[in-house]
Parts: sequence; structure tokens; C-alpha cells
Amino acid sequence: MKISRYFPILEWGREYNSKTLTNDGVAAIIVTIMLIPQSLAYAMLAGLPPEIGLYASILPLIAYAVFGTSRTLAVGPVAVVSLMTLTAASAIAAPGSAEFISAALILALLSGLFLLLMGVLRLGFLANLLSHPVVSGFITASGIIIATSQLKSIFGIKASGAAMPELITSLLATIDTINMPTLIIGVTATAFLFWVRKGLKPLLVRFGLPARPAELIAKAGPIGAVAVSTIATIMLGLEAKGVKTVGSIPQSLPPFSVPLIDLELWQTLAVPALLLSIIGFVESVSVGQTLAAKRRQRIDPDQELIGLGASNLAAAFSGGYPVTGGFARSVVNFDAGAETPAAGAFTAVGIAIAALFLTPLLASLPIATLAATIIVAVLSLVDLKTPREIWRYSKPDFAAMAATIAITSLAGVEPGVISGVGLSLALFLWRSSRPHAAIVGRVPETEHFRNIHRHKVFTDPRILTIRIDESLTYLNARWLEEFVLEQVAEQQSVRHVILMCSAVNAIDASALESIEAVNHRLHDANISLHLSEVKGPVMDALKRSHFLDELSGQVHLSQNTAYSKLILLSDRDDALEENPDLWKARGLI
Amino acid sequence: MKISRYFPILEWGREYNSKTLTNDGVAAIIVTIMLIPQSLAYAMLAGLPPEIGLYASILPLIAYAVFGTSRTLAVGPVAVVSLMTLTAASAIAAPGSAEFISAALILALLSGLFLLLMGVLRLGFLANLLSHPVVSGFITASGIIIATSQLKSIFGIKASGAAMPELITSLLATIDTINMPTLIIGVTATAFLFWVRKGLKPLLVRFGLPARPAELIAKAGPIGAVAVSTIATIMLGLEAKGVKTVGSIPQSLPPFSVPLIDLELWQTLAVPALLLSIIGFVESVSVGQTLAAKRRQRIDPDQELIGLGASNLAAAFSGGYPVTGGFARSVVNFDAGAETPAAGAFTAVGIAIAALFLTPLLASLPIATLAATIIVAVLSLVDLKTPREIWRYSKPDFAAMAATIAITSLAGVEPGVISGVGLSLALFLWRSSRPHAAIVGRVPETEHFRNIHRHKVFTDPRILTIRIDESLTYLNARWLEEFVLEQVAEQQSVRHVILMCSAVNAIDASALESIEAVNHRLHDANISLHLSEVKGPVMDALKRSHFLDELSGQVHLSQNTAYSKLILLSDRDDALEENPDLWKARGLI
Repeated sequence: MKISRYFPILEWGREYNSKTLTNDGVAAIIVTIMLIPQSLAYAMLAGLPPEIGLYASILPLIAYAVFGTSRTLAVGPVAVVSLMTLTAASAIAAPGSAEFISAALILALLSGLFLLLMGVLRLGFLANLLSHPVVSGFITASGIIIATSQLKSIFGIKASGAAMPELITSLLATIDTINMPTLIIGVTATAFLFWVRKGLKPLLVRFGLPARPAELIAKAGPIGAVAVSTIATIMLGLEAKGVKTVGSIPQSLPPFSVPLIDLELWQTLAVPALLLSIIGFVESVSVGQTLAAKRRQRIDPDQELIGLGASNLAAAFSGGYPVTGGFARSVVNFDAGAETPAAGAFTAVGIAIAALFLTPLLASLPIATLAATIIVAVLSLVDLKTPREIWRYSKPDFAAMAATIAITSLAGVEPGVISGVGLSLALFLWRSSRPHAAIVGRVPETEHFRNIHRHKVFTDPRILTIRIDESLTYLNARWLEEFVLEQVAEQQSVRHVILMCSAVNAIDASALESIEAVNHRLHDANISLHLSEVKGPVMDALKRSHFLDELSGQVHLSQNTAYSKLILLSDRDDALEENPDLWKARGLI
Repeated sequence: MKISRYFPILEWGREYNSKTLTNDGVAAIIVTIMLIPQSLAYAMLAGLPPEIGLYASILPLIAYAVFGTSRTLAVGPVAVVSLMTLTAASAIAAPGSAEFISAALILALLSGLFLLLMGVLRLGFLANLLSHPVVSGFITASGIIIATSQLKSIFGIKASGAAMPELITSLLATIDTINMPTLIIGVTATAFLFWVRKGLKPLLVRFGLPARPAELIAKAGPIGAVAVSTIATIMLGLEAKGVKTVGSIPQSLPPFSVPLIDLELWQTLAVPALLLSIIGFVESVSVGQTLAAKRRQRIDPDQELIGLGASNLAAAFSGGYPVTGGFARSVVNFDAGAETPAAGAFTAVGIAIAALFLTPLLASLPIATLAATIIVAVLSLVDLKTPREIWRYSKPDFAAMAATIAITSLAGVEPGVISGVGLSLALFLWRSSRPHAAIVGRVPETEHFRNIHRHKVFTDPRILTIRIDESLTYLNARWLEEFVLEQVAEQQSVRHVILMCSAVNAIDASALESIEAVNHRLHDANISLHLSEVKGPVMDALKRSHFLDELSGQVHLSQNTAYSKLILLSDRDDALEENPDLWKARGLI
């Protein structure tokens, strides 16, 4: 156990040189420009004052640079985690209030602790419980909720809610109070940002710019919208006409904050914090793996838990809120040429400078512009192609996805995730309790055995061979008992049953008990039980039990020899039964 | 869907004749004699008045005769379910009180409804969640708790508690109030019953009785203890000397009862009722299957849920308490020659006659005798052999069992079952998230591919073949991504990766997404991905997705042809790289 396992910085830090410094520095500048409006916007989405978004983009990035294993992942506030923070903290206090901000700090602390704990105990596999259809459905539904929730800022009206029915009711109830100047800014900014996303890059390329810088400039579009709409608001005196702006942001580095120690509050926030950290982890790891693979690098998911845990703890102690690795910013970081996590640390410095010196410039930034930024960003999360593909590929998976989308939209993010996970698990357990097995017979003139329903094979009515295509566990143990006994009850001529175990990788204690029960019950019915093609490790385990002593038949190395032997045995028994005297005369019994 | 599926009585009823009538009648008489003291004793164990044990042995048996599928299962009050009833109802009211009796009725109602619902929705597979080590550990711990709880009646002292620490403290606190006559009756009855169990049958056989009648007479031992101790109590006037007796039992048929409709109470009792019904179901089905197999019969677990559900509803509406199929009485019923569930209905008639006419005879029956009956019955549940065997066979299974025994003994039956199920599930999910896979190479001069760590095989550094030994699901999908990318990162010379899918029975939507991600990531690193030996149903599913269009390599029918082809391809690419001009000169490119 090397200490560098917990400090990946010791690995890449040794090889750091002036070239990596330059590349990381350039990437950091570009990511900083992108991150300033995004941090403000996501903090606003989470119901927090805008400066908290900036604070959450400083120390957490440095913590990740020390503990994270991805070279290019950019950590900070992201849309889905912001929505989950809003939902969880709204149960405690009104958005924007001091209690609300305090609840957000506690969420960061608790999710930091959960992530660290999972990392140290190597429990990263728990994230597997979130199947792809559930995560995809959840993110799509969150995108729809977030975009809808931002319409209020585009229209300049007041509305609230964390699930679609409340949001829509609330929007319709206040739609008559639309503020026209706000609407004009909001719609223009949204249209501009959509155009920047789709149309700016091709335009720049046509003007002779290479593709990569064109891409990066297009990514800086939001800063343009921020500048233009702020200047317009000041010049035209729009604040007096009812356009809401960000207002004065304190000029300061992140404050040192200590999350409130209130066990009852912690209990209330524990489940939301757990869900939030697992969802954040899954998103972050999938981004990290995608980028690492492009350069044939590796990330270590268990160490990623520690990296993200450290980031969230840093957020909790520096006036931030829950953070994770973001998709868009990580791609920009990667494309801009970041080579090591130091790029993240440099970005943190950039944001710190912005928090110290640029905040006065943002006082007159219209909130509608930030809402436009969010809408354009989250609509890319809404994925209507995947549901169609999953519908074609697998109906049970589609059911889990549809339930997640429906329940997230109608009842909110937490019931949505929980029911998605519950449904996936129930479907998995149900499938696991009905493993694949086939009655097989011998393909004529060969030593191969195939499913009697799919191939023309030879079977002997006195011998039943069941090929088990999965490991035997407690979930399918009772199924095996029922299946074997049912087959035997249907086919009264059977005298020998062979379980062909070529695909059985393990037999747990419950399954062993069931096979023992099958052995005894078959024995009571005068049928002998045989095994064939048992794998080495399974055979080793069986030798540690009494099963082999009690087995009424034998364990055969190959299915073919088992079959041939039992046919001969049955023939002899038949002949014996028909004409016992003849056999006696020959001295055979 | 035939109606007779829900009414198995329609199947066996048609063939009913005088011979089956005689056999069922004889069995019913023997089971009735055994059941009278047992019903009283288990009701007492559950903290209920003794007549409730009789009521629970009348209508529920008739309901099972109509709906059950086992020909010989005997339903009624059993030890473990009685303990669970005591624990659950004690949370509501003091044992013996009117509220307590009412809570027991609600438990019967709720477990009846749960069982019916699971039967109709065919959710019997949920019982699989109780692995064999958990059930075995739970029953052993329950046996120890029950035996300990009965010591108070043997000693004639007052003590209470539903878990070992309270029970022992409470016994030690009151040990100075021992009643000597009670102790003498209790110890004598216990010793007698142990002797009957072990020594009476051999004695009767030595006196010339055939084995089966000797066995059945031995099973009726408790009724002898009941008779002798009752007569002794009356003759010696022991009630005046402090020996507690059953007291007057109302002479009546079961009353019609309606469980209290109190939603809050139902909510409190819902989880205990669910656990109780699943534990009862698992016990009952395992007894039913054992007996059915001896006569090459079958039981249908989903219909068994309906049968047991109907029994519990019958108990709820006739002044009873939760019931299930019992082991000892079913074996007696079977050995006594019962042929159809009608034997159960006849037993119900026998118990009804006892409730009407025999109850006055039981007024002076010492409670210590009933306690002795319970102790002797439940000590056979305590199984110290299985833990040792499971320890040898599988450490994780042993951990689940040990946790169940420890938590059931220390904290009670419900936390015991829940933590056992939780631990089994966590272990299963953990194992499922790390499936078996192997890097394989070609066994020289054959077409077989084997694990490179176990066999001497040929491998080409440019081609990596991974044999996946399990179905790909959302639980192991991320593992697959990590495993493949890790192997590729370690072996920089790899140009082609083959996933050998001979053991993959299914690929769910999450796993498909992961394989797609592997394909894209390998492609980004200039490695092509191939599949070999894909099974028919898996291939059909893949054809419904875009995966095959995007696959950088190919799907090969056999691993051997895939391997040979890719070696040739790599050789050509190598030659091309070394000497492009030569190839150009030959017109090959």
C-alpha cells in the first residue's frame, strides 16, 4: 500500500515541467472564462446567492487536483447536483435564507463524508445500482425540470416548485405579471446562445480560423451574452423598468465556514446527500473515463470517490455547496490542452481573481441572461434518442427508465432516483431468480449436447440431462429445485438425472442446500442424481461439504461419458428386470 | 387459465373415494391428538389465551384444504410464527390484553392479504431473498429465544422479553421466587417428553410393535404428559400450592371476529406482518416440497401463497392468529397415511369437537407441562451442525448466518431477519458486480482457448482476448469497462481486443452502453473491438441496437477464426509499416 495511491499528485507532480505548465495555464484561462457565468447561474439555480457559485469553484478544484485521478476532469457546481441541492435544502428553509445556505453547506459536508467513506471502504461498486437507463432518465427529467424552472426568470415573474406539476401551476398563476424588458433580454440571450452553440463555430471556420480555436471561442459565448446584456441594462436604465439583476456581490476570497452541527438536521439531509453524492459520482466517473480513454490513461474509481469527497469537504469549509465533475467544462479543459490536474488548480486561481476584482462589474448583470445560460446548457441533457433506443432493445430496461422520468417529473428528484433504483433492482432479482437452463440431448454421431428444443438431438427417456447456464445462488436455488422436480414429475420414466454444470462458476450455501435436497428427493423417488463437467473451483468447494458423500449418483468429468455410461447401466437394469433368471444363469448377478 | 388452478380441490376432489376417506380419517385422528396440546402451548407462547390456539387450528385448516396444493401439509400455529406474533403485538399492548388479541388478529389479516397478493401477482420469488443461511440462522436463534422464554413457566416465576439480554436479566431478577411444585412438574414433563422422543419408539418396537405405529404412538407423547400432569394437579391439590394452570377455557366453536380497522395500527404492524408471512411461507414450502417429492408429487409455490393467504384470512375472521404449515405435524400427517388435503379438514373437525367438549378437562392442566412441550419441540429447531458446515463451505454465507443469529438473539426477530436479508443481498450484489472473466490464449495445435494463468497457451501481444463468464448486466457493466481499459492500458502493444461471449446469456441496456463506450474508447486509442461466439438470443438483441453499425471490428462466429484472421491482419499491417515501398511495388496497396 503506497501512500501515492491516495495522493495521485505525487505521480504526475514528479514529471511536471515548463511545457505542461504552459498547456495547463492556457486551458485554465479558457475554463475560467467559461466558468464565471456558469458558477453564478448554477448557484442561482440551487437557490443560493451568486457568490457561492464562485466559492464552490475555488478550493474544491484545488482539493481535486491533489486527490483526483483524472488528468482533465474539471470539478465545480453542475446543473443536476444544483437542482438536487435546491430540492433537499428547500425542505429545511426558504431558498436564499441563512438556514438554506447553511443546509447547502451541510449537504456538501455529508456528501463529502459519504464519498470519502465509500472510497476508503472501496464501496464504489454501490454506484452500479444506478443502471444506465435510470441515470439517463433521471438526467433527462432533471433537464426538463431545470429548463422549466428558469422560465420564470426569462418572463420576469415569480414561480417556484421542484417538480413539474407545481412548476407549471405556479408559472400559469403568475403569467400575467410578465416584465417585457426582461422577456426581451431573456429571449434574445437564449436565441444568441443557441446560435453561438450551433452557428458560431462554422462561421469562424469559414473566416479562416482553425477548428479547435473556433470551438473554444464558441464555448466562451456566454461571457459575450453576459457583457452585452450587462452593458445594455446599465445604458438603458433597465433596472428601473423592472429587470432583475444579480446585484452587488461581495468582493472577497471564499470565507472559512463551519457547517452547523445539528444531528437532527443531518439526519434529515442524510438520504438526499447520499443520493446527490452517488449521482454526482456516476456523472463524474463517466466523464473522467471518457476523457482518460482518449489518451489511453486510466482513472481509479475508488480514488475518484476520495477526490470528489475531498472537493465536497473543501466546499463545505469554504462557503460553497455540493460539487462534482462537470461534462461541458471537462471537455473544454481537455480540448484546450490541459495535461494535468494542475490546470484545475490554475482555474481556481482564475476564479479567485474574478471573485476579488471582477464582481463589481457583474452587479447589473440581468438574471434573465443567467437563466438563458442555464436553459441552453441543460437542454443538451435532455436526451430523447436514448429512450427510443432502449425501447427497441429491452422492454424491462425501458420500464425502469420511464418510471424514473415519470416519477422524477411528477414527484421530484429523490422519489425519482429511489424508485428507479428500486425497480432496476427488483427486475434484476426477478431475472436472477429465473436463470437460463435447458434440457439437452446428444447431437447424433458427436460428443456435443444441445438444447432439445432447438436442435435435432438424441435423448433416452430414462436419462434427463439439464444444462444449467448460470451460477447457482440463493436467488435461483429454489427455482432449481422446482425445475428439476417438475421435469421428473412430468417424465415418469426417468431413472437418472444429470446436471451439466459447464457454465456454473459458483454454488453458494443456499444452492448447495437445494442440490442436496434435490438429491434426497430424487433418491426417495428412486432416481439417482449425477453431475457432469463441474469446474475446478466449484469442485473444490463441493469437496468441503458432505454433498459428494451423499450423492446418489456420481460426478463425471465429461457429459458424454456420463451419458454413455448411464445408458449402458439402464440397459442392464432393464434386461435384468425382464429376465432375472437369464442373468443369474450367466453369473452376472 | 383454468379456474382449477386457483382451486386445487377440484383436481383431487374428483378422484376421492372410500379408501382415501379411510386413510385421511385415520391420519386426522392422530394429528388431532398431537395438535390439541400443541395448539394450546403455541397460543400461550404467542402471549394469547389458550383457546385462540384451538381456533387457529379449525377454519385455517379448511381454507388450506380448499386452496393449498400440498397433499399432506398440516397448517396451524407454529413456534417461530408464534414468537414473531408475540414480538410484533407486544409493541402495541401487553400480552393477553384485549388490544393484544386484536393486534394478533390484524397480523393474521395483513399476512393473509400479503400472501394472497404475492400469490396473485406471482411474487413468490421474493421469498428467495431469504437465503438458506439466513433462514437457518433465524430459526436456530428463534428456537433458543423460545426455549429460554419458557424457562419462566418451568420455574413458576414471572419473566418477560423478546430478545436474549432482556430475557436473561428478567429470569435472573426473579429466580428467587421459584415455585417448587411447578419446577417438579416442569422438569419431570420435560424429561418425560425427551425420553418419549428418543426412547419410547425403540421400546415399543422391542415389545413387538411395527415401526410406524410405534413412531405415531411416540408422537402422541405430549397428550400423555398432559393427562398425567392434569390428574396429578387435581389429585394433589397443586393449584392451591401455587402451580399455575390453564384455567377455564370457553366451550365454543371459533367466534366470528372482524379485525379492527385502524390504519395507523395497520401501518405499525405492516412490516412485522410481511416478515412473518414470508418466513412462514418459506418454512411451509420447504416442508411441502420435501413431502411432495417423496411421492413424486408437486406443489405450486405461487398457489401455496394463495393457500396460506386464505388460511390466515380464515384465522383473522375466526378469532385465531397467524398460521403456517408446520414441520412436525405435517410429517405425522404424512406418516399416518394422509392422502389428500381432506385430512386437514377432518383434523379441523376433530379440533372443533375438542373445543366444544374437551376444554373443561383442560382447566387444571399445568402451564409448566405446556412449557415443557414447547421446549422439547423447539430444541429440535436449534441446529448447531449447519453453522459448522457453512463455515467450511463458504465464509460470506457464514457471515450472513452469524449476523442473523447474533442480531436475532440480541435485538429481536425483526432486526435479525432484516439484517440477514440485507447482508445477503449486499454480498450478492457485490459478487455480481465482479463477474468472472479471463484473458485467454490458444492451446497449441488445437482450436481451444484457455485462461493464460492456468494453461500453457499461445498469445499474440497484438491481440487481447477476454472471455466473459457471466451475463452482462448493469451491476457488472462498469466493471467490464474498467477491466478492458485497464488491460489495454497495461499492454501498449494491443491493436485488437476480442470479447469471447460464449457464456454471455444476456446483455442488458446498461451493459450495451458500456460495450459501446468500450468500443468508442478503444477506437479513440486506435484499437479495434471484436466479439466472438455470441449466442443467438444475444445477437438478436444486438441487431435491434446501433452497436453493430458502430463496432470498429467484427462479430466472429468462432473464437478460433477470429484469432487467426486478426493475426494475419496484424502481420500485414506490421510488414506494411516496416516497408511500405515494397508493398506498393507489389501493387498490394
